[in-house]
Amino acid sequence: MIYFNCDYMEGAHPNILKRLQETNMDKTVGYGDDPYTESAKARIREACDAPDSEVMLLVGGTQTNDVVIASFLQPYQGVIAPTNGHIARHEAGAIEHSGHKVLALPGENYKLSAEQIREYCWLYYKDASKDHMVMPGMVYISQPTESGTLYSLGELTEISRVCRADGLPLYVDGARLAHALACPSNDVTLGALARLTDAFCIGGTKCGALFGEAVVAPDPALLPHFFTVIKQHGALLAKGRLLGVQFDTLFTDDLYFRISRHAIDMAEQLKGIFRECGIPFALNSPTNQQFVILESTFMEALREKVRFSFWEKADDTHTVVRFATGWSTTEEDLAALRDILVSSNL
Amino acid sequence: MIYFNCDYMEGAHPNILKRLQETNMDKTVGYGDDPYTESAKARIREACDAPDSEVMLLVGGTQTNDVVIASFLQPYQGVIAPTNGHIARHEAGAIEHSGHKVLALPGENYKLSAEQIREYCWLYYKDASKDHMVMPGMVYISQPTESGTLYSLGELTEISRVCRADGLPLYVDGARLAHALACPSNDVTLGALARLTDAFCIGGTKCGALFGEAVVAPDPALLPHFFTVIKQHGALLAKGRLLGVQFDTLFTDDLYFRISRHAIDMAEQLKGIFRECGIPFALNSPTNQQFVILESTFMEALREKVRFSFWEKADDTHTVVRFATGWSTTEEDLAALRDILVSSNL
Amino acid sequence: MIYFNCDYMEGAHPNILKRLQETNMDKTVGYGDDPYTESAKARIREACDAPDSEVMLLVGGTQTNDVVIASFLQPYQGVIAPTNGHIARHEAGAIEHSGHKVLALPGENYKLSAEQIREYCWLYYKDASKDHMVMPGMVYISQPTESGTLYSLGELTEISRVCRADGLPLYVDGARLAHALACPSNDVTLGALARLTDAFCIGGTKCGALFGEAVVAPDPALLPHFFTVIKQHGALLAKGRLLGVQFDTLFTDDLYFRISRHAIDMAEQLKGIFRECGIPFALNSPTNQQFVILESTFMEALREKVRFSFWEKADDTHTVVRFATGWSTTEEDLAALRDILVSSNL
Amino acid sequence: MIYFNCDYMEGAHPNILKRLQETNMDKTVGYGDDPYTESAKARIREACDAPDSEVMLLVGGTQTNDVVIASFLQPYQGVIAPTNGHIARHEAGAIEHSGHKVLALPGENYKLSAEQIREYCWLYYKDASKDHMVMPGMVYISQPTESGTLYSLGELTEISRVCRADGLPLYVDGARLAHALACPSNDVTLGALARLTDAFCIGGTKCGALFGEAVVAPDPALLPHFFTVIKQHGALLAKGRLLGVQFDTLFTDDLYFRISRHAIDMAEQLKGIFRECGIPFALNSPTNQQFVILESTFMEALREKVRFSFWEKADDTHTVVRFATGWSTTEEDLAALRDILVSSNL
Repeated sequence: MIYFNCDYMEGAHPNILKRLQETNMDKTVGYGDDPYTESAKARIREACDAPDSEVMLLVGGTQTNDVVIASFLQPYQGVIAPTNGHIARHEAGAIEHSGHKVLALPGENYKLSAEQIREYCWLYYKDASKDHMVMPGMVYISQPTESGTLYSLGELTEISRVCRADGLPLYVDGARLAHALACPSNDVTLGALARLTDAFCIGGTKCGALFGEAVVAPDPALLPHFFTVIKQHGALLAKGRLLGVQFDTLFTDDLYFRISRHAIDMAEQLKGIFRECGIPFALNSPTNQQFVILESTFMEALREKVRFSFWEKADDTHTVVRFATGWSTTEEDLAALRDILVSSNL
Repeated sequence: MIYFNCDYMEGAHPNILKRLQETNMDKTVGYGDDPYTESAKARIREACDAPDSEVMLLVGGTQTNDVVIASFLQPYQGVIAPTNGHIARHEAGAIEHSGHKVLALPGENYKLSAEQIREYCWLYYKDASKDHMVMPGMVYISQPTESGTLYSLGELTEISRVCRADGLPLYVDGARLAHALACPSNDVTLGALARLTDAFCIGGTKCGALFGEAVVAPDPALLPHFFTVIKQHGALLAKGRLLGVQFDTLFTDDLYFRISRHAIDMAEQLKGIFRECGIPFALNSPTNQQFVILESTFMEALREKVRFSFWEKADDTHTVVRFATGWSTTEEDLAALRDILVSSNL
Repeated sequence: MIYFNCDYMEGAHPNILKRLQETNMDKTVGYGDDPYTESAKARIREACDAPDSEVMLLVGGTQTNDVVIASFLQPYQGVIAPTNGHIARHEAGAIEHSGHKVLALPGENYKLSAEQIREYCWLYYKDASKDHMVMPGMVYISQPTESGTLYSLGELTEISRVCRADGLPLYVDGARLAHALACPSNDVTLGALARLTDAFCIGGTKCGALFGEAVVAPDPALLPHFFTVIKQHGALLAKGRLLGVQFDTLFTDDLYFRISRHAIDMAEQLKGIFRECGIPFALNSPTNQQFVILESTFMEALREKVRFSFWEKADDTHTVVRFATGWSTTEEDLAALRDILVSSNL
Repeated sequence: MIYFNCDYMEGAHPNILKRLQETNMDKTVGYGDDPYTESAKARIREACDAPDSEVMLLVGGTQTNDVVIASFLQPYQGVIAPTNGHIARHEAGAIEHSGHKVLALPGENYKLSAEQIREYCWLYYKDASKDHMVMPGMVYISQPTESGTLYSLGELTEISRVCRADGLPLYVDGARLAHALACPSNDVTLGALARLTDAFCIGGTKCGALFGEAVVAPDPALLPHFFTVIKQHGALLAKGRLLGVQFDTLFTDDLYFRISRHAIDMAEQLKGIFRECGIPFALNSPTNQQFVILESTFMEALREKVRFSFWEKADDTHTVVRFATGWSTTEEDLAALRDILVSSNL
């Protein structure tokens, strides 16, 4: 069996496990007040060119989105997000559990535009019933999006401008941020995110860590008592050092970027194989997730030899499926996939 | 420096780290649907002599308490707990964030009695205003308690009886359960917990795991859609296998009990040293946490050489402090502490 | 100035005020445990042909929706509603404040179809990620809808069938129910609502009461401890008798239906005037709310003499506005409006 | 039967009902944007000598407490209140439903002292675990208290000083405020409340209104988007004019104070009767609620002729009961009670 179903099927990148091993018997206090966490935060601040930012390390993605959003919003506010954004669809109502409405806007290619946000706010502010409605209180987007598409620097700059004009904190969910940063076509750097957003997270889980999301908040004053909010949401890791060691390792010797460059390189080769075999793409993704359209009977047969993810039905006889590469994808995996596809006489 | 300040100062027990290393490159799907988790659950069910129970693996303690309590309670219900219980004091309002009142009763030695619970419910049900009040919906206790004391099998049986008579699910927070199970004076087994409670958790973090709490629910029907509740609370670990591997290891070859027996053995030796040096105990704890009374000036001097935790002021010139042993405490640590105390001419 | 802007511009129907006056000095206990409330409940049960139903009297509409929905749903569930339903748009996030997602489906003419609900649930239950999603837990619709359209008995029966097949409680928001019941084209009676739904409310505020919504729950077991939930949401009126007196009066001598028949009669005459004056309808409403399209400049001029409500822009030069009739609308009001419109030379 | 069981057993003071009658057919828009509400707010501002304050009119007491507290607090904060305060005991968990912990302190005579608050905050701020705890975010007290006792101007000034020093908004629940204001021994005026608190409410329900609580917020900036919070909590009355008319009437020609002076006058006479009959007081209340100790067998016999409220058991053979006077209590009621007591040969 060859595996392309997702980018977090193994434990951790060996460097990380090695570092956990080396530091295992060191004694530290808990809850992130340890030297590894301090070092990790310093490295992340430096990578983001944001020396005054607050960096907080959390365990999981839904948790991170919930905690950040609950911190930014007042009780009478909601969060603007694309209809198919993770918080709107696949977080089991975590945002609503914290009392907030997700103000979902249809996103083209899973992306929101600055113009959409501007128009939504404009309509809200001119609505005679606005005091009976949920006030837009922040904007949530993800980079890359759920479908692997990217915001360009131009698009993000424009969104940031609109958000600041309307007083809306902008939060970028970067659960797979590494795989955006490494794309040749990407022009949004960590530094740009720190300049243009009010918070973003740097995902570790899908880029070689056992787990972990680093929240970067350029202006810490916007997230007061953030530590207590983390605790209140059950999101505080007792042995916070584990997050520290992992992010410290990821941001040492460029590991985070080497991992993602490898994944993107594998994805580029994967795209070549699909093209070679005449398999059409459902959409043009520059990142480590590739969405192709398979004839459904063929898809069922292929499942016997290759793991991938169902995405959605294309039509009665075709299905969109997702192939993902990651730090552990090998040239051998690709060669094996090519052999299977070529010999299938599609 | 010697460290007795808490029982989770290192990473993990070496066996656990070794097993994480060995399984690191195995590919599994996420969210706990992997063979390690399956095996861990089977071993825990067996250890609890509860073949029909549901076992769910979560990351942290506050998270576990919040998710379990939110699952058991209806919106109009609250949870009975001791005034000094963890959920009542040190979880930053996590239970209230989920909409529930903690109905705090003063606990002697941090413990509730069956009689207290019975009386509270009796007063509630006969109160003419009861429909204007929060209905008691479950009972939370911890084993061992925050102060290291234990419920006896007799006490727990009686509490269970009262809870069942009043239709109150009983939940036992076992963040340090191992250290209760290993006490010579303890008579509450995992099997007894499975018989007498509606849910309890088996803490990993404080007993050699990197992290992890295993929730055991003898009657899974009482926690419907528990997986979704976990997700909604941001408590679902993407690489659930990490919890599986850890608990599978802890429940292989009796590791969980070997770890805790060692900690208790160290605690017994520690008690001997305190007795030898004439240091009085603030309370009689049979577990791995020992609470002693130090003259405050001496305490400050001792801090230069030994780490321990401030607990509370005893009087104007004395302080109660906590010494904790754990899987990593060594005979050398104890000998070094003894030397310091003996040479101090208390 | 003539007023058609809404159906709750005055205090109460004179009969109600008279009855409040007559009973004013009677002494009763609070919170609804008084003979007027008892009588009102009995009359409502009888009018609904539902002798075993629970009837609870609340003050306001958002409050009622919030309390009912919070009672039906488990924390991991959401409520299916039309995108433009009141709870989805104009209740300031009350449902989310209680922790629940509004699962909004686009409604044609503000209405959901049985087929939509069925398909939504079918997609949910077959989604491999469903445990990461909000579970549909009930259905909310309103009769009449926000735009004055009606569900037919056939449509409602079909929705009820789908809801029961999927275990979804069906709740009908009847803030303006009287104005549906009185429509000549309506075939959904109170009895039908009691047979087909799991709860519905009978609005008083917009039908001659000072305030008040009566919740009818055919199977009270579905709303356990409903009184306490009402109290918890701050929705319990101290002098509950005021609700009792009002609903008792409304359901005496057919007043509720006489009021609404008058409103519908006025609305029919209003429609005649619009037709006579060549003013086009934005949609075909059989109820007391009429939506017409006015040339925007004319609309501004008309505002000087007549009050109505802005609804939405039709195009760059036209606007949809709402005219509402009510128990207090008079033939004189209509004649005056006709004069203005006729003399306007549209 | 004579009635002393509570102060809201009738409808409304006749002046209020008369004014509702007079204004009934006036047409106004909803939600408090009407001239009666405007006038009521102006009169209340004037009575409080607080021209810049915001005044908002709500329907009920629990509702008011919930909305005000939810507006003041951040999600990570709780509200300090006496253990026996209304929000801590008799509001069915409304505050917790909005996500906040009630930080209950034992109150002597149902009252908190400035020193208690100061000490609680001091302990919190010096606690090494404070970031794992609920932050005190405001203070709730009531005037009069649940047991009819009063804060003196000196006590309130001291509490206000402590609250301001610690940045805690101070909120006074004045559900029965009229009955405090009218006490001869009271020295806390509306003006003092406006100077010393950050919000307080002026209860109408228990002082002659059908319903209604007026929230006065001296610095409106502390309650941003308060209207939307009211709506979100289901607390917005559609026909807001009803609140406007009632408070406008109460604050016209001193009615509010005339009503309460009458109630206090009746209470003073009631106290005289108890003294004359040798019935002991459970506590010394200067307000309209009197708490006396009855021999339990006698109490049961008395119930046949007089209505009063059970308060609590005094001992095995005695019971504390509450007698309340109000605007509708008459000299005849008192004379009849006296006759019964005197002829009872206690």
